[in-house]
Amino acid sequence: MTLNILIAPSGFKESLDASDVAAAIASGVHAAMPDARTLLAPLVDGGEGFTRALVAATDGQLHERTVTGPVGQPVAACFGFLGRPGPKTAVIEMAAAAGLALVPRDQRNPMLTTSHGVGELILAALDAGAERILIGCGDSGINDGGAGMAEALGIRLLDAKGQQIARGGGALADLARIDLSGRDPRLDRVRLDAAVNWHNILLGPKGVARVFAPQKGATPEQVVILEAALETYAACLRDATGQDLASAPGGGASGGLGAGLQGLLGARLHPRYNIVMQYLAFDDLLGQADLVITAEGCLDEQTPFGKIPAEVARRAKALGIPVVALAGTIGRGKVRINFEHGIDAFASILKRPCTLEEAIAESEKLLRRAAEDAVRMIGVGIRLRGERTAA
Amino acid sequence: MTLNILIAPSGFKESLDASDVAAAIASGVHAAMPDARTLLAPLVDGGEGFTRALVAATDGQLHERTVTGPVGQPVAACFGFLGRPGPKTAVIEMAAAAGLALVPRDQRNPMLTTSHGVGELILAALDAGAERILIGCGDSGINDGGAGMAEALGIRLLDAKGQQIARGGGALADLARIDLSGRDPRLDRVRLDAAVNWHNILLGPKGVARVFAPQKGATPEQVVILEAALETYAACLRDATGQDLASAPGGGASGGLGAGLQGLLGARLHPRYNIVMQYLAFDDLLGQADLVITAEGCLDEQTPFGKIPAEVARRAKALGIPVVALAGTIGRGKVRINFEHGIDAFASILKRPCTLEEAIAESEKLLRRAAEDAVRMIGVGIRLRGERTAA
Repeated sequence: MTLNILIAPSGFKESLDASDVAAAIASGVHAAMPDARTLLAPLVDGGEGFTRALVAATDGQLHERTVTGPVGQPVAACFGFLGRPGPKTAVIEMAAAAGLALVPRDQRNPMLTTSHGVGELILAALDAGAERILIGCGDSGINDGGAGMAEALGIRLLDAKGQQIARGGGALADLARIDLSGRDPRLDRVRLDAAVNWHNILLGPKGVARVFAPQKGATPEQVVILEAALETYAACLRDATGQDLASAPGGGASGGLGAGLQGLLGARLHPRYNIVMQYLAFDDLLGQADLVITAEGCLDEQTPFGKIPAEVARRAKALGIPVVALAGTIGRGKVRINFEHGIDAFASILKRPCTLEEAIAESEKLLRRAAEDAVRMIGVGIRLRGERTAA
Repeated sequence: MTLNILIAPSGFKESLDASDVAAAIASGVHAAMPDARTLLAPLVDGGEGFTRALVAATDGQLHERTVTGPVGQPVAACFGFLGRPGPKTAVIEMAAAAGLALVPRDQRNPMLTTSHGVGELILAALDAGAERILIGCGDSGINDGGAGMAEALGIRLLDAKGQQIARGGGALADLARIDLSGRDPRLDRVRLDAAVNWHNILLGPKGVARVFAPQKGATPEQVVILEAALETYAACLRDATGQDLASAPGGGASGGLGAGLQGLLGARLHPRYNIVMQYLAFDDLLGQADLVITAEGCLDEQTPFGKIPAEVARRAKALGIPVVALAGTIGRGKVRINFEHGIDAFASILKRPCTLEEAIAESEKLLRRAAEDAVRMIGVGIRLRGERTAA
């Protein structure tokens, strides 16, 4: 009997991204059960590693382009095409062109950093024939509301004198009018989806400037300026499009790029894991699976409330498929509540006393071994059942 | 389907004895699979906890007697009867009457401590109708070669003047002759077996005085005296019985009690786990089992070479029964070599980063949970196979 095993993990914070986690689990599964067929669905968030993970999971292709980085420097960035039948689907990770990691520490100033390169990647995907584009948001180093991105796609952001404003979140304070007449017409024909943190909004006390600009390098004074600049931007966006995005879910994603994507580019925003599951054809994969292995850095009593293993288990249960969870750490407390939410069994990757740091340093190997050990344990059950039914 | 699960663990050094380990695993098994039938075979060594474990595992009975302790004090000691059909079988643990734990720290002197109480327990078992007696050796606080024990059973140890020598390992230096004429005649009719460490011998550089007397409180000078005294004892024993026990396997067990048991009481010595398995009717239990769970404090690349899980796995494999091992710690290195020695799957009890001390403090709970988690994982396999065969 060949088992079809769907491997649908999240990343392990501080050590492995979802793609690494899925690969390590697959390797362990094959060590224990060489003839198992593994289906990979790494449940990435929209941030760093998004493109690589989705392309790898679908046997797609990466394309490199040199684009404008967040401080104006040239950066080598990738977009990709998924390797699946159906519409030609590009994936773009905003962090590849405007991520915080691309901003040198001494230039971390979201008054100036720009999302222009993200627009260039979208252009490149359009040029390469994309019929659908999925944009991952997260790990940004900007606070320009996607203004730079919009500019790269032919949209003009003008001041009171009709001059194009400068790049960066601070310059949005000068904005008087958004001119959509030059917008790349292909945007009307291509479906754009964005994977965002649904809780990030554009303006107000919980808006993106106040919550995230400090970690991108803004001083308290700059936060105030950036918030006011985004207010101006939102007002002009409303004037130009009729959309009020001040507190729309996901509008604050990636320094307000969410608002620019939705308001100026016509993208649809989605809670990140939902849309990733959709682009990965998760439910189709699930339909082929005999068993699901999910994973999370820490499985605990909060897991049933919105974490990836719980969402995976919910979908698997609807089809009656057993679910096993692997975790770096099994939390204290009522972790067994997970058994009531569709997880049938779980295991920690730890094997001996160690510190958290040691576990993180070894996490890939430990995870591979843990997957092997779990599948061996499951194999004992398969054998037992076989003997009992044969008897 | 009701699974019959044989639980055959060793103890976890520094935290749980084999009996505790078996009970914790059984509790976890039932949490995961309430209708499973558990068979317990805690694989005790001969030391502390021996009687309690074997009596508990077989639903037998404990009997308390006040006997002479190692420094002459009265101690409340137990022997037990196994709760199994067949010959009435007593179990006695030498440490209950002459263990190191019964010697106050300021009186730790194996020149003086005596095994007399062990003989009193044997007498009590005979009085209670024992047809077979299993004596566990280990954790002793004496070095008298079993002379005190022999005396309690009517054997007289005489000096050159025909006077009974004093108690304790030092007085054996005065021994001139052993008189067996008063030996309790029931010893001829009752089968005596002893569970010993097979590597402990009576005399020489690796003899019991040199290797073990220091940890029982002997000074270097006393070690020399004790070795010479045991030489005298061995010579008299040879004169009285024709047996040379100077380097017989197990003769050095429990301060030479092994030699006294074999030479003076007619007991048969056995490597401890072999005879424990025999008294527990291990192979009969195995014949009823669908699955075996074994356990060890640390499972590592040395496990296949004489450790309990390997011996359990060897016997289970001969009957084609799957074996799962739980361990406090999974060692580094080639631990996977265990898969070639009959262990089908293993799991650590650890769930999160911790120190060894924390793991030891929580070991019972962690073990219970680990058993539950392993059986849940096995349950996933049972279910998988069921779905596939039903399809």
